[in-house]
Amino acid sequence: MPDTGFPPPHGFVEICEAGTRDGLQIEATIIPTAEKIALVDAMLDSGIRHVEVTSFVSPRAVPQMADAEEVLRGIRKRPDTNLMALVPNLRGAERAVTTPVDGGVLLISASETHNRKNLNRSIDESLAAFPAVAARLRDGGKEVLGAVAVAFGCPFEGEVSLDGIIRIGRAYAALGVTQMTLGDTTGMAAPNNVRRTLRGLRAALPGMQFTMHLHNTRGVGLANVLVSLDEGVRRFDAAAGGLGGCPFAAGATGNICTEDLVYLLDESGWTTGVDLDQSIAVAKRMEALLGRTLPGQVMRAGPRLRLHAANAVPTAAG
Amino acid sequence: MPDTGFPPPHGFVEICEAGTRDGLQIEATIIPTAEKIALVDAMLDSGIRHVEVTSFVSPRAVPQMADAEEVLRGIRKRPDTNLMALVPNLRGAERAVTTPVDGGVLLISASETHNRKNLNRSIDESLAAFPAVAARLRDGGKEVLGAVAVAFGCPFEGEVSLDGIIRIGRAYAALGVTQMTLGDTTGMAAPNNVRRTLRGLRAALPGMQFTMHLHNTRGVGLANVLVSLDEGVRRFDAAAGGLGGCPFAAGATGNICTEDLVYLLDESGWTTGVDLDQSIAVAKRMEALLGRTLPGQVMRAGPRLRLHAANAVPTAAG
Repeated sequence: MPDTGFPPPHGFVEICEAGTRDGLQIEATIIPTAEKIALVDAMLDSGIRHVEVTSFVSPRAVPQMADAEEVLRGIRKRPDTNLMALVPNLRGAERAVTTPVDGGVLLISASETHNRKNLNRSIDESLAAFPAVAARLRDGGKEVLGAVAVAFGCPFEGEVSLDGIIRIGRAYAALGVTQMTLGDTTGMAAPNNVRRTLRGLRAALPGMQFTMHLHNTRGVGLANVLVSLDEGVRRFDAAAGGLGGCPFAAGATGNICTEDLVYLLDESGWTTGVDLDQSIAVAKRMEALLGRTLPGQVMRAGPRLRLHAANAVPTAAG
Repeated sequence: MPDTGFPPPHGFVEICEAGTRDGLQIEATIIPTAEKIALVDAMLDSGIRHVEVTSFVSPRAVPQMADAEEVLRGIRKRPDTNLMALVPNLRGAERAVTTPVDGGVLLISASETHNRKNLNRSIDESLAAFPAVAARLRDGGKEVLGAVAVAFGCPFEGEVSLDGIIRIGRAYAALGVTQMTLGDTTGMAAPNNVRRTLRGLRAALPGMQFTMHLHNTRGVGLANVLVSLDEGVRRFDAAAGGLGGCPFAAGATGNICTEDLVYLLDESGWTTGVDLDQSIAVAKRMEALLGRTLPGQVMRAGPRLRLHAANAVPTAAG
């Protein structure tokens, strides 16, 4: 029976809030710009320091993101916050540099089919376009980050090639990118492939830091967080209330839930700088705004020591 | 950055299905006995070998369990199956020995308040009653197992005493019980207290095997599974579809979900003997029977390599 245990948790884990970007992008109802701004302000109030606020995609493709500039300009910035936005092409970079965004995230898919469906071009074409996009962002004083969608499996092609992700990672590294997000776009990450992917990438890409962007589509999102922590990852994307989801998997949940992640990390000995109660308040605000129940659990049950009166309804629980 | 990793997963993990007991017990609608029998048969068909079928509680207290004898008599038994039932008192033992149940599970709570509310007696009174119940079960040829409710926190009292659980474990050991279930009755287990509790119990109770009965009330159920595996636990309760829940936490999910657990273990390198597709079929049957959506995720999204046609609705996912 193994009893070595995980390495003892210690130190800081960065939570990047992706709710207003990856969460809202598939919402059919357009959320008022002022509400988006208020949501990001509330996220920052909760202690979150990195927010992927919006996406500089074509407003025709994703109408929800048409107000990217306005949202970014409306947020109450603080010295220690880091506001990011997805910048899928040069047109996006041209828009980003006119805003107070701190960084632009380049995007590519690990599979050819997903890249074509999501970005309407081949992987080679995406890679070839990166230098100009990165240069435009940097000329505008913006940080450049990289993301890889469907990094743990593609809903069309199945398993993705680790060599393919390494190739993308080398292209990012060649551009001076040191922070790379591994997107579990449709929730195909699971302990074995999380370990295999992270070990392969760490060996091939020294100096690159990884952000895990996990979805809870198959219920194992927070389990994958523990595995990722065990593999040295210290930065995770999450969305308030577990907002998001995959248009190809009806009923499936979306991003791992920010406040559930905060709870897990708090109860594992990690420091996040995020206040759980305020994080729950953000999720409840998101839920009220969308008018439907979100998948978050801690927002319903409350933190574990939120006690009940002993004269409540009796149970017959085992 | 730690890179020791978890110990490599290998070997067998036993999944005990608790859906018809801990799952159904709080359902207001009485499920027909034939349906319960068909559910357990389908669970056994999926490869599950241990089922906590029912509970020999007072039919007045829990009308859903009034058909305990009939359900147990109706199940198609196989030589390698292990059917268990909760036996909270001597009256329950008298009933259990008239059935084909293989084992009776004694029950006590880790907190005084929960024990009084759940079993209407003090912890001392429960402990004093155990020898007669165990003797009656053994006289009837039944195995005796032990369970501790609210082992990771009590919704009324908060943190529970590890010494108190050790005292209960010693009482079980004195009765010759070697399998003890640690009930996370209202989902208060989290990595730190799972580790602390398991380490404390293993040190104090050599020879005792532990079953983790985790709930997903706060979203961290499967993360707690990984922590428990890391602490040497090889047996978990779960419920088809994630059925169950706590009457004190409206909207909260219940037991960890059997098919999501099978998926997690499959994708981590463990062997369970359970067929994922058949396990999903059981969850869907449960859902159809109850007429409402259950919290299970894999039953909705499907296994990770269940691919989508590339001509499906386009995404804008990152």
